[in-house]
Amino acid sequence: MECYFDNSATTQPTRKVVDAMVEVLTDCYGNPSSLHRVGDAASEKLQTARETLAKSLSCDPAEVYFTSGGTESNNISIMGAAHALRRRGNRIVTTCVEHPSVLECMDRLTEEGFEVIRLPVDGTGHVSETDIADAIDEHTILVSMMYVNNEVGSIQPIGAAASAIKRSGAPALLHVDAVQAFGKLPIKPSSLGIDLLSISAHKVHGPKGQGALYMKKGTRLTPYILGGGQENGVRSGTHGMPGITGLSAAVSELGDIEANGKYVATLKAKLLNQLSSEDNLVVNSPDDFPYILNISLRGVPSEVLRNFLSECGVYVSTGSACSKGHRSYVLTSMGLDPKVIDSAIRISFSRFNTEEEIDYLAECIKRANKSLRKVH
Amino acid sequence: MECYFDNSATTQPTRKVVDAMVEVLTDCYGNPSSLHRVGDAASEKLQTARETLAKSLSCDPAEVYFTSGGTESNNISIMGAAHALRRRGNRIVTTCVEHPSVLECMDRLTEEGFEVIRLPVDGTGHVSETDIADAIDEHTILVSMMYVNNEVGSIQPIGAAASAIKRSGAPALLHVDAVQAFGKLPIKPSSLGIDLLSISAHKVHGPKGQGALYMKKGTRLTPYILGGGQENGVRSGTHGMPGITGLSAAVSELGDIEANGKYVATLKAKLLNQLSSEDNLVVNSPDDFPYILNISLRGVPSEVLRNFLSECGVYVSTGSACSKGHRSYVLTSMGLDPKVIDSAIRISFSRFNTEEEIDYLAECIKRANKSLRKVH
Repeated sequence: MECYFDNSATTQPTRKVVDAMVEVLTDCYGNPSSLHRVGDAASEKLQTARETLAKSLSCDPAEVYFTSGGTESNNISIMGAAHALRRRGNRIVTTCVEHPSVLECMDRLTEEGFEVIRLPVDGTGHVSETDIADAIDEHTILVSMMYVNNEVGSIQPIGAAASAIKRSGAPALLHVDAVQAFGKLPIKPSSLGIDLLSISAHKVHGPKGQGALYMKKGTRLTPYILGGGQENGVRSGTHGMPGITGLSAAVSELGDIEANGKYVATLKAKLLNQLSSEDNLVVNSPDDFPYILNISLRGVPSEVLRNFLSECGVYVSTGSACSKGHRSYVLTSMGLDPKVIDSAIRISFSRFNTEEEIDYLAECIKRANKSLRKVH
Repeated sequence: MECYFDNSATTQPTRKVVDAMVEVLTDCYGNPSSLHRVGDAASEKLQTARETLAKSLSCDPAEVYFTSGGTESNNISIMGAAHALRRRGNRIVTTCVEHPSVLECMDRLTEEGFEVIRLPVDGTGHVSETDIADAIDEHTILVSMMYVNNEVGSIQPIGAAASAIKRSGAPALLHVDAVQAFGKLPIKPSSLGIDLLSISAHKVHGPKGQGALYMKKGTRLTPYILGGGQENGVRSGTHGMPGITGLSAAVSELGDIEANGKYVATLKAKLLNQLSSEDNLVVNSPDDFPYILNISLRGVPSEVLRNFLSECGVYVSTGSACSKGHRSYVLTSMGLDPKVIDSAIRISFSRFNTEEEIDYLAECIKRANKSLRKVH
């Protein structure tokens, strides 16, 4: 049996996603910027994809921009917002548990002379609302905060950030890295006070190499990827139509997001129930988000457990796929015992996982715990 | 009959490209950064793709970097080189007929305080070797020059740029936008003295949304897309495996590049022969490059001709797909008569075009000329 529980690293595209991509790779292969029938057909596909994304975010299609992925969406938003607003202030507020594609931008902006405030998190991976409110002053030009943490699943108080910006009178834009949240939590950026929202296709059974950016109407970014002016100048480059169409197909298949979440919550609960007999089990995730479960089996190193499971055909990760080889800065920021950190694994679910897979996962973890604990 | 002659805007992916992509979308869907069997399988695919690209450029696989397209390759190279070398000099040399993804970067660098020299072209679209040598001084840190112009097909004297850099003792890197040249001319960057070379998949029957960058060993760029450190830190972001695999498949199918070029040259010659009776025909392209033919039918506006042909099922472009709606700056730089510019169309061939398609293209152009010249 093979069970894939690394859905926060990447997911398997669905059949419909693949079929939609094959169509634009074969019959409808035009460049949407070309002004002839073949280009027009591609242009229509592009518009349909934009409308599909807009519907999923309850926004206007003109507020949807296609990018090459979550990393690029984060780069474009953060660098673009900071550079666009540099004359109105110098302060940027973020957290210390953001994805590297946010944190590395913050390091770059620090070098450029911006004052970057990195808010700490508590033992459950949450930023405090008070800290947010205290950090945002009238010179703040950007607040960047992830919706759901990719390693432990903590949901951050986005609404509190939006309110704090409003109260402060700051010119700040609110950027939200929603790579893990999109398609799993209902998100309406306009209701949440979000100006910029990053999305990745391959976390929701779409293709790798495709992303999107929600940008509230009237927002101005200094363009970061420069060229032919596609995507209203926000992201130049020939449209990656296979990826765009694949993302659109994935989004149109999401179904009832809340029902999916409830189903996945039952899978997680079932797993935890089956593992409750393991006396060295530590649950590192808060109970916020059903799709991500970070656990440690004290005394069993992460890599050893991950490899044991991989040999059983069960795939989980240690930390995120983006930080291989380093001790997790997210778990470190949460103040966890280093021994717990060094034995942490992330189990990340998909709505397509089954109860049978959970049974097998639990069985393999128990087997691993029995045999590996002896050795170490 | 439908004939696609806009292959410099984009191409139709081959069956093998599509099949290769479907495989990584279905069976081999892992994230190459994931440290388990599913990730390992993806990682192997990634390495194979890198080796395929390396073979085509006679370079080391470690010199190949995957990007989201030609635009991004150009952005990463130019911004990255300028920022990495800013302490060693301030001068950048380029031409006035580069792609917008180069020229817009140059505008940005000018704003940042760099001195950007934009070399003119002659009536055939070529930069003069003397101008190149004169422009490159000892403070030059970057020379960026396209291999083949996308609108008219002029081949630039890359070798002269490389020699001039060497002679000057400048610390300059040589960046070549080879988006139109790759797969159509044999390119060995190390023999040509090239440090950075941009490639796009979708110009060679690969997928849109995928590019590559050759970077000579030992070259240092300041990273531009920041994040998880993929591609040796040069281009962060989860690998776009469908696109990477598609590019690799397209490259492995290129076959005999010189023989392809000869075949396409016969197509171009056949077309010109068939159009020789049209007394208002002006050929705007030099004879450098068989794949791109820019012509004008004096008195027939570009858009009108393009639309007429589109109605016949024949697809050509006016200027490049990246500059729709504006009078071509390339043809303007060549000093062409505005009337010639306003009636210019670009016919761009593929090795898959047939003689029958050429016959139909010629017939439609003649028909258009007859009926449209009367009207205008």
